[in-house]
Amino acid sequence: MNLNRWKRKDLFGIEVLERDELEFIFEIASDFRAKMDAKDKSLPSLEGQSVVNLFMEPSTRTRVAFEMAATRLQADVITISQGASSLVKGETLRDTAMNIQALGADIIVIRHSSAGSAKYLSKIVDIPVINAGDGAHEHPTQALLDCFTLKKHLGDLNGKKVTILGDILFSRVARSNIWALRKLGADVTIAGPATLVPKSFETMGVTVCHKLEEALYGADAVILLRIQHERQTSTHFPSLGEYTSMFGLNEKRASYLKKGALIMHPGPLNRGVEIDSSLADSGRSVILEQVTNGIAVRMAALYLCSIANKNSTF
Amino acid sequence: MNLNRWKRKDLFGIEVLERDELEFIFEIASDFRAKMDAKDKSLPSLEGQSVVNLFMEPSTRTRVAFEMAATRLQADVITISQGASSLVKGETLRDTAMNIQALGADIIVIRHSSAGSAKYLSKIVDIPVINAGDGAHEHPTQALLDCFTLKKHLGDLNGKKVTILGDILFSRVARSNIWALRKLGADVTIAGPATLVPKSFETMGVTVCHKLEEALYGADAVILLRIQHERQTSTHFPSLGEYTSMFGLNEKRASYLKKGALIMHPGPLNRGVEIDSSLADSGRSVILEQVTNGIAVRMAALYLCSIANKNSTF
Amino acid sequence: MNLNRWKRKDLFGIEVLERDELEFIFEIASDFRAKMDAKDKSLPSLEGQSVVNLFMEPSTRTRVAFEMAATRLQADVITISQGASSLVKGETLRDTAMNIQALGADIIVIRHSSAGSAKYLSKIVDIPVINAGDGAHEHPTQALLDCFTLKKHLGDLNGKKVTILGDILFSRVARSNIWALRKLGADVTIAGPATLVPKSFETMGVTVCHKLEEALYGADAVILLRIQHERQTSTHFPSLGEYTSMFGLNEKRASYLKKGALIMHPGPLNRGVEIDSSLADSGRSVILEQVTNGIAVRMAALYLCSIANKNSTF
Repeated sequence: MNLNRWKRKDLFGIEVLERDELEFIFEIASDFRAKMDAKDKSLPSLEGQSVVNLFMEPSTRTRVAFEMAATRLQADVITISQGASSLVKGETLRDTAMNIQALGADIIVIRHSSAGSAKYLSKIVDIPVINAGDGAHEHPTQALLDCFTLKKHLGDLNGKKVTILGDILFSRVARSNIWALRKLGADVTIAGPATLVPKSFETMGVTVCHKLEEALYGADAVILLRIQHERQTSTHFPSLGEYTSMFGLNEKRASYLKKGALIMHPGPLNRGVEIDSSLADSGRSVILEQVTNGIAVRMAALYLCSIANKNSTF
Repeated sequence: MNLNRWKRKDLFGIEVLERDELEFIFEIASDFRAKMDAKDKSLPSLEGQSVVNLFMEPSTRTRVAFEMAATRLQADVITISQGASSLVKGETLRDTAMNIQALGADIIVIRHSSAGSAKYLSKIVDIPVINAGDGAHEHPTQALLDCFTLKKHLGDLNGKKVTILGDILFSRVARSNIWALRKLGADVTIAGPATLVPKSFETMGVTVCHKLEEALYGADAVILLRIQHERQTSTHFPSLGEYTSMFGLNEKRASYLKKGALIMHPGPLNRGVEIDSSLADSGRSVILEQVTNGIAVRMAALYLCSIANKNSTF
Repeated sequence: MNLNRWKRKDLFGIEVLERDELEFIFEIASDFRAKMDAKDKSLPSLEGQSVVNLFMEPSTRTRVAFEMAATRLQADVITISQGASSLVKGETLRDTAMNIQALGADIIVIRHSSAGSAKYLSKIVDIPVINAGDGAHEHPTQALLDCFTLKKHLGDLNGKKVTILGDILFSRVARSNIWALRKLGADVTIAGPATLVPKSFETMGVTVCHKLEEALYGADAVILLRIQHERQTSTHFPSLGEYTSMFGLNEKRASYLKKGALIMHPGPLNRGVEIDSSLADSGRSVILEQVTNGIAVRMAALYLCSIANKNSTF
């Protein structure tokens, strides 16, 4: 394995990555994925290394996925979650990170409500920093697992039509996916209520489309976003019911997609809101496969950043 | 070790088990227990397997016991607790379980407030599900550790008189113990305030007795239940003091038990409420032994379900 | 390594230790520290042992440090934190500890709001108990890491002047440091608002000084304490601003210290309150070094108590 294709200490976002770096992560992840299935224990190992999960926004799904990924690489995982924040009380984020490094951590995985926090930390500490979601900015491992899943099914993404549907404006998943898909050559359409899908995203090289049927028409895949109704204010759309009736994916709307198109969702699902239950459980849905692929992709991210940090010439 | 005696993927309750299955768990647990004492490291191993503790009701005692048991078998443990429930927010229990399986978990240990939840999940996922308490329904590993402890002291339970005293109506511990003790041939008496010890339990093959002295008379063991005063409404008995004066176990009442009878309690103790402090610390109390046996029994449960799942013909 | 110099099962405080015991902990910690730097894996091991972190007061910093230390020794760590207290609800501290021992824990690390709790538990259980802070009483591993850091820079502490500045009255860090520094022969001065630095501390062999310049003059090191403004009532000093203007360490005040004097702080830092930001980041600050040394010192404490418990003649 020629590891010269990865020279970064950190993974703080998709925007800065080259296409070849993305492809290289997928190759490594593919290798890990195969070994997971085969229960093959001959995995490269981070044994004796400490991964600190610094989760300053609530999250179980992503935290557990990183714990699983790190554990499979035989690393030790220590989780610091929002609740347990006396490390943090009255302390700057910079001091928190410097302390975690001084405690002997080998890698920091951070989720934080502020856009740019992961990149900021990556400049401060010498150890790798992996972004597990920074505000509405980026969620790079989610985009990596989405694209990894798309490639498994569709092969080369060049010229493939991928539609992202939902709350684009506040979604770090959407932003990271747009960067990744565009770098991989896909044609990206974003759709949803006009208040949540602003024209300004066109500067990212996507088609903005407020007519749902047009957005879905002929798409190779649709990535649904979660309507975060616990955070939603009334200003962006009238009601959940309104959203579902206008943008919820149902059998009729799904029929506009290309035959055999993939239906994706980062979870957790609001069944009956952004997606009909029957579609979520249909053969077209690859939602659970995304979850499994997320382990492989995160293993690759932890492994590559760790290796690059230890021995940049190896 | 002939493992053909255990063929179940799951342990969701005692009700469905055969007597020989109970005996087989005790044999395996007995083996584990001896190795724990001897600090013998040659334990069968779940190395590289991930146990997910899904605790959707607060619990420290049982969660820590499962963590300890899994850790001794060299499994990795990931805990998802009620507080950290964004995995779960707006998500069905079915989706949560499917996600945990997709993340690569090898075993799920679940505590949940709904009766039947563990059995429900066992049908949904391919991996083993172990019930750590489902509502007021069953708490099978508690009953297993109680019966294991009884057998260590009393030998064969056939014809032995075991009295369960306290809040039977709302107690999953009582239900699982009644099933287990009856299958093992013990005579079971249940006692406590009439509002909490309804006649309908007679259909489970027990004697319902509202006269405490009669219930205790000649018993080989008494299992006290915790008065869960944080949940208690005033409708079931007038006050804690009232309960203690009428049903709290004290020296006088304990004198009705058979000489050398065992005093048991699942913890945590309300000293001075359901039991006098001096009795809890007396030689007749096997309360701490129950805790230690709980590790061995849970190791057996994790091990057997895991092995049966991997290789049913082995 | 002649381990006869350590015969204690527990580390519940500095007050009871002999100077030679302190020196021995430092020797062991120094060894661990060197191996940490060299990524030398040939560490003595607590493999297969379970460390239970019983944290009944909120703490992330100390909890994570103990987790890191135990993990480096290959022990398994199970954390029971304040929130997850059903183990504990309606249960005496004694019963909680007896239960943890019955669950098979090999070491208990306890933080508790009551002075004396760690010593109390050490009498109750047979396994080692390490105090991670008991009320305003002692925080022995903090004092050990502070003195370890001081010795690395200053050599023998005999006759060295160390000033502790801040809220002495409510500080377990101050108490443990006073005991440790006095045993090691240092001259200790305590300073801060008169309400927080009572004359009565003179009985511990320290100089009480309310004039800041005099307290700092010629000191080889100053240990700042955190102003715990979240706990502070108005009775002890008028306001944070008042404290900073009278006792906050700034460049001018630091100039009274001996040339090359060390600036120390147990963290988390209130930048701009008890210390100027520029001083915290200056070459004189050894604050992050303290954090790293804390791992080595805690490894030594876990190791020595564990070994002494297993084989007192070895």
